[in-house]
Amino acid sequence: MENDKQLRFIGTIYSKLKKLEDCPLQEKENAPKATIEIFAEFIEGLKNVRPGDNLILFTWLHKADRTVLETRPRNDNNLPLTGVFSTRSPDRPNPIGIHFVKVEEVLHNKQFTVSGLEVLDGTPLIDIKPDMKN
Amino acid sequence: MENDKQLRFIGTIYSKLKKLEDCPLQEKENAPKATIEIFAEFIEGLKNVRPGDNLILFTWLHKADRTVLETRPRNDNNLPLTGVFSTRSPDRPNPIGIHFVKVEEVLHNKQFTVSGLEVLDGTPLIDIKPDMKN
Repeated sequence: MENDKQLRFIGTIYSKLKKLEDCPLQEKENAPKATIEIFAEFIEGLKNVRPGDNLILFTWLHKADRTVLETRPRNDNNLPLTGVFSTRSPDRPNPIGIHFVKVEEVLHNKQFTVSGLEVLDGTPLIDIKPDMKN
Repeated sequence: MENDKQLRFIGTIYSKLKKLEDCPLQEKENAPKATIEIFAEFIEGLKNVRPGDNLILFTWLHKADRTVLETRPRNDNNLPLTGVFSTRSPDRPNPIGIHFVKVEEVLHNKQFTVSGLEVLDGTPLIDIKPDMKN
């Protein structure tokens, strides 16, 4: 049985970064905390998430330009045009963001806070997996 | 400008694993080589991929059950039901697969082979990023 290829947003990320210009080009260790809210229909999937867990969050970078195939890394005009699949640019055919975070607090059954995440406020969440490398 | 949330398949993975039953529950270091083919409209994005590159491949696990929110890890009936966001189960609302691979050969401008990847033959590819942790 084949499933379709329409993403379902499972939640939203709330952060202090309100504009694209606020977002750093690479994530920093001292990123501010962000709050993750999971939509009611998906909260069963979250029941084993605990403070201290290392997770991989997958976001949908909804402001990205999906037509871009080549870019200059870090918007540096001195660097040559590079294929997007060798860069972390959000502009790419499927603008999936991947973020390695640590759970700080589980606020209640549908909200938790994480450290180490810098994404635009309101960014949709599409998946969460345990980070087994950590 | 908001983009939509329909995924675009950027390529296909060809592997020796023809049935779900052939797929191991966790990837092994000695996985057979797999071949990645990128569709013509996306090949510009691939132009800087070289042998030896460590990449993260994102796949769409098109045989997965998208209605599952709780599962028993490794299908072990002795383990308690666990929220899918704390597991690597392919069955989840958005069945995105994440695979850390190494490029072996770049065959021509739209095909390359990788080691360390075990996914079902014909699995759609949705994104490629450099693995900067490696």
